[in-house]
Amino acid sequence: MQEERTEISSLGEFGLIDHLTKNNETVNAGTILSVGDDAAVIDNFGKQTVVSTDMLVEGVHFDLMYNPLKHLGYKSVVVNLSDIYAMNATPTHITMSLAITNRFSVEALDEFYEGVYAACEKYNVDLIGGDTTTSLKGFIISVTAIGEVTPDKFITRSGAGTGDLICVSGDVGSAFLGLQLLDRERRIFLEHPGVQPDLGDRTYILGRLLKPEARMDIVEWLKANEITPTAMIDVSDGVSSEVFHICKQSGLGAVLYEDKLPIHQEAKEMAYEFKLDPTTCALSGGEDYELLFTVKQDDYEKLVLNEQISVIGYTTAKEEGMHLITRSGNKHTLLAQGWNAFDTKK
Amino acid sequence: MQEERTEISSLGEFGLIDHLTKNNETVNAGTILSVGDDAAVIDNFGKQTVVSTDMLVEGVHFDLMYNPLKHLGYKSVVVNLSDIYAMNATPTHITMSLAITNRFSVEALDEFYEGVYAACEKYNVDLIGGDTTTSLKGFIISVTAIGEVTPDKFITRSGAGTGDLICVSGDVGSAFLGLQLLDRERRIFLEHPGVQPDLGDRTYILGRLLKPEARMDIVEWLKANEITPTAMIDVSDGVSSEVFHICKQSGLGAVLYEDKLPIHQEAKEMAYEFKLDPTTCALSGGEDYELLFTVKQDDYEKLVLNEQISVIGYTTAKEEGMHLITRSGNKHTLLAQGWNAFDTKK
Repeated sequence: MQEERTEISSLGEFGLIDHLTKNNETVNAGTILSVGDDAAVIDNFGKQTVVSTDMLVEGVHFDLMYNPLKHLGYKSVVVNLSDIYAMNATPTHITMSLAITNRFSVEALDEFYEGVYAACEKYNVDLIGGDTTTSLKGFIISVTAIGEVTPDKFITRSGAGTGDLICVSGDVGSAFLGLQLLDRERRIFLEHPGVQPDLGDRTYILGRLLKPEARMDIVEWLKANEITPTAMIDVSDGVSSEVFHICKQSGLGAVLYEDKLPIHQEAKEMAYEFKLDPTTCALSGGEDYELLFTVKQDDYEKLVLNEQISVIGYTTAKEEGMHLITRSGNKHTLLAQGWNAFDTKK
Repeated sequence: MQEERTEISSLGEFGLIDHLTKNNETVNAGTILSVGDDAAVIDNFGKQTVVSTDMLVEGVHFDLMYNPLKHLGYKSVVVNLSDIYAMNATPTHITMSLAITNRFSVEALDEFYEGVYAACEKYNVDLIGGDTTTSLKGFIISVTAIGEVTPDKFITRSGAGTGDLICVSGDVGSAFLGLQLLDRERRIFLEHPGVQPDLGDRTYILGRLLKPEARMDIVEWLKANEITPTAMIDVSDGVSSEVFHICKQSGLGAVLYEDKLPIHQEAKEMAYEFKLDPTTCALSGGEDYELLFTVKQDDYEKLVLNEQISVIGYTTAKEEGMHLITRSGNKHTLLAQGWNAFDTKK
């Protein structure tokens, strides 16, 4: 795969940093000092700073067998930016720390950073620092994202009120089904190494898993249309889990409607092929990086103008609990089956 | 060692976060929103934000055989704060991401966090976010520190001028010799498991390795005495390496004096026991977390009042290169033998 191979040890730690950051141009006027010193300096008068961090571990969050390094670099940035957008803030800076084994070549790292820089460029974010070190096993990625928000305009998980509409952007469950597809092909490959993976034309769900986007557009649209969500969260662990977070922190219950969940046609087909319930995939599958938010009912007329936003239910008093109304009209108790990083199933 | 053992899986990811952050009190007035949402919010009008990040990997940066978890938690915070102080800034917030294997119990994590919170308290820093996930092998710690500085008062590595004095706080080489001592005892233990470690009364050098402090006091003293370093860096890789950084980024050469290097008596004794040259240990041993800085010659009279600061040399024109004047008056070319994270010797 790699035609050229430069040993990382041949560059040394500082040479490697120089190498990796040589194309790192900063775009924000507030970036006073970037990579190359003990720390980075950001000017942010009249704004509030928002910070979020995520760690991705090989074999737990990704598999290098089917995560192209460039996509992985892109995704590791995006999942952090998604958290910043979920605060109604604008990401401005990231730091990126990596632990790598010696099986990584400089070229492999370059590929990874190509994705990192592509994400930075797309989302107008500056990479301002990081640390690259050795790992005894596996590839570990730790990203911290910093953003800014107009004072007191950030949106938490705790601000929802009774009777607010629960909304989600885009569609949900696709990334989970993309993962099922890749897992199946990996198992086949491990058993029959000669067999080529059969990914069919499932490009949509694979793209959703391997190269997700953060919903910058939704945050901007809401602002432009003067809709202020009462609570907001990004869908990393699954719709159910995120609704649970908002309800718990806002002291509410919720009702969701099965027929309102936005599920992509390709995800539905894949679910049926795997004999899975598309609704369960949509509720419990994680990594969609959509925004889930609540709004006052008064905003409904404005909201329906955006095809990228689905109203999937509403909040209730806490005592009413959390339920799903099925297509057939049955009422089921909703479970928070979000993805658990400490599950041993993987 | 652990009398009680609660499996992390019994808490779940969010239960674990709740558990770990239940005693997390924030002290900075600017901390508007801390752990428990997608991101943290910091108010910082009229200040500049400083950010630094570091990753520590088991088996590379530390060994759980001789790093007590509480000390490790403390150290993982301190090494990041040290970077912020090296900017002449005041750390205000950190994020802490961990990847852990299932051999870790909740009690073990608690011990680690005890150290984290102890460091936060000592340095008036708020823990405002993080991520805890699973690791396939080893314990991985990633910390991002954020600080503030009066606009344009931060100090980089590039500001030194010709003829500036090169200073270092405290003493250097002790942490390296502490590591040699622990490594020796570990090797003996691995060969003869029954033998108790013989650490003698080397408490100073062991403390320097296992529970370093960041030089907040030096930054405050310099400010109080109206001394503004022209360049500053913290000693994480070794004095030589740090002098190289400052000289490279300031476009200068340097002369250091062997007899001016501050070496603790216990470190000297340990070096002789190991048949090592104390000067080499002082120049090339890392992890001292002292501050190395340059000042204008005019500040000399003020500097000498502080016994915690040693003037170890001066900067020269770049063409003159980098040299060490030995005790016997010989002139040696200085080598940047900083610690290299990609070395395979460990």
